[in-house]
Amino acid sequence: MFVHVNVAASADGKLSSRRREQIRISGSEDMTRVDRLRADSDAVMVGVGTVLADDPSLTVKDPALADEREADRKPRQPARVVADSHARTPPDADVLDDAARSFVLVAEEEPTEHVQSLAGVGAEIVVAGTNRVDLADAFDTLEGRGVDRLLVEGGGELIFSLFEEGLVDRFTLYVGSMVIGGRDAPTPADGDGFVERFPDLDLVDVERLDDGVLLTYDV
Amino acid sequence: MFVHVNVAASADGKLSSRRREQIRISGSEDMTRVDRLRADSDAVMVGVGTVLADDPSLTVKDPALADEREADRKPRQPARVVADSHARTPPDADVLDDAARSFVLVAEEEPTEHVQSLAGVGAEIVVAGTNRVDLADAFDTLEGRGVDRLLVEGGGELIFSLFEEGLVDRFTLYVGSMVIGGRDAPTPADGDGFVERFPDLDLVDVERLDDGVLLTYDV
Ligand SMILES: NC(=O)c1ccc[n+]([C@@H]2O[C@H](COP(=O)([O-])OP(=O)(O)OC[C@H]3O[C@@H](n4cnc5c(N)ncnc54)[C@H](OP(=O)(O)O)[C@@H]3O)[C@@H](O)[C@H]2O)c1
Ligand SMILES: NC(=O)c1ccc[n+]([C@@H]2O[C@H](COP(=O)([O-])OP(=O)(O)OC[C@H]3O[C@@H](n4cnc5c(N)ncnc54)[C@H](OP(=O)(O)O)[C@@H]3O)[C@@H](O)[C@H]2O)c1
Repeated sequence: MFVHVNVAASADGKLSSRRREQIRISGSEDMTRVDRLRADSDAVMVGVGTVLADDPSLTVKDPALADEREADRKPRQPARVVADSHARTPPDADVLDDAARSFVLVAEEEPTEHVQSLAGVGAEIVVAGTNRVDLADAFDTLEGRGVDRLLVEGGGELIFSLFEEGLVDRFTLYVGSMVIGGRDAPTPADGDGFVERFPDLDLVDVERLDDGVLLTYDV
Repeated sequence: MFVHVNVAASADGKLSSRRREQIRISGSEDMTRVDRLRADSDAVMVGVGTVLADDPSLTVKDPALADEREADRKPRQPARVVADSHARTPPDADVLDDAARSFVLVAEEEPTEHVQSLAGVGAEIVVAGTNRVDLADAFDTLEGRGVDRLLVEGGGELIFSLFEEGLVDRFTLYVGSMVIGGRDAPTPADGDGFVERFPDLDLVDVERLDDGVLLTYDV
C-alpha cells in the first residue's frame, strides 16, 4: 500500500491552536490540490482525535473529480478510514455518512456495544492490535479490501505513529503564512517523539501555493 | 530596533526533541548563512531556556566576518542578550564569556545575589518588568546602548512572546528534512499560543539550502 500523509501547518508548525478548533491555514489553491489528492486515493484516513475535533466528511468536493473516478470504474468517492482503538467515533459523525464506504479501525479490547453501534450505521469494522490499533496489521486488512493508495490527513498523533512504524511513503506539508503558537497545540507529528534516531526525509519539491508554500517529501 | 527571528525546525515543526538536547537540523550552508546574520547584527539573543539546554556562545565563527565588523568600526563580535527574568543563567555560561559584550534581561523581583553574581562576571544587567522580562521595555534600553539590529535565535517560549507583543520584523525558518515528533518537544512558537487572531506573515522568499528549505517572512 502506498501511504501519503498530507497536512497544513502554520509557519511555527501547528495544525490548529491549543483549543483544537479547525483553523483555515491554506487557501483555495491548496484545497483544490487536496481534493485532487483525495480523488486519486482509494481511501482517506484520520485519527479519531480529528473526527472529534473537526467532524470532517473527507469526501471529494468537485463533482467533476467524482465523475472521473466513475469513468475509471471506481466508486464516486474514496472510502474513509478512522483509527479509533476504543470506537469513540460518534455514530452520527460525517465520516460515517453514506457518501462513501467507511472503515473504523479498532483494537481487540474494545467493548462490543460501541462497535455494534458503528456497524449499525454501516461502518466496516477492522480489528487490529490489543489495546491500540496496530496500524501495519490494519493496513494489510485494508489492502485486502482494495485500498492500494491511502491518503492520511492527520492529526499529529496518528501521523507520529505512522512515521514510528515506517509506514509513510510520501509526506506533503503546506506551510501557511501565519503564526499559531502554543506549547499544547497539535503539530504534524506529536506522539512521544523520537529522541535518538530521527527519520530522514527527501525534499523532492518546493512550490509556492496561495500565500504559503507546499513542501513534498519522499520518506 | 529591527528584530529578526531565525530558527531551524524539523519538517514537523520542532526545534529539538522532547529531551531538549541540541539536534543538528540544518547543514553547513545554513550555518554559514547564520554566521553572516550574526555578523550583520548588533546583538544576538536567546531565552534562558536555550542557555540552560544548549549553552551556546552566539559568537560569529568566521574570523573574516569578525574582521569585516572591525573594518566597519564595530566590535569584532556582536553582543549577546539573554531573556532571563530570574537570573538563572549560570555565571560560567558561554554567553557570558569575554568573547563579547553580554546583556542579561531580568525582572524587578529578581533576588539581588543572583544578579550580582552575573554582574560579577561582567554581564550588563537590564531590569524590565515586574516578575517577567518586559521585552518592549528591555528593547528600548538595549536600543539606548547601541543595539539597532537584533537577531533572536530562540527558543520557542521567547519567540512566542515576541510575536505576541508585535516585536518581530522578520522571521526566517530553516525547515530541515527530518521528523522529530513529540507533543512535548519545543516548536518555533510555544507559549500559551494564539486562539482567535493569528499574526499574518508575508512569505517574501523561498530558497533551497543544504537538503532543506529556507523560508523568509516579513511580519
Ligand atoms: N491542519 C491540518 O491539516 C489538520 C489535519 C487534521 C487534524 N488537524 C487538527 O489536529 C487535531 C487533532 O489531532 P490529534 O493529534 O489530536 O488526533 P488524531 O491524530 O486525529 O487522532 C489521534 C487518536 O487516534 C487514535 N489512534 C488509534 N490508533 C492509533 C495509533 N496507532 N497511533 C496513534 N493514534 C491512534 C488514538 O485514540 P484512541 O487511543 O482512542 O484510538 C489517538 O488519540 C485537531 O485540532 C484538528 O483540527 C489539523
Ligand atoms: N533549532 C533551533 O534553531 C533552536 C534555537 C534555539 C533553541 N532551540 C531549542 O529550544 C529549546 C529551548 O527553548 P525554550 O522555548 O524552552 O526556551 P527559550 O525560549 O530559550 O527560553 C524561555 C525562557 O526565557 C525566559 N523569558 C524571560 N522573559 C521572557 C518573556 N518575556 N517571554 C518568554 N520567555 C521569557 C523564561 O524563563 P524565566 O521566566 O525564568 O525568565 C522562559 O522560560 C532547547 O531544546 C533548544 O535546544 C533550538
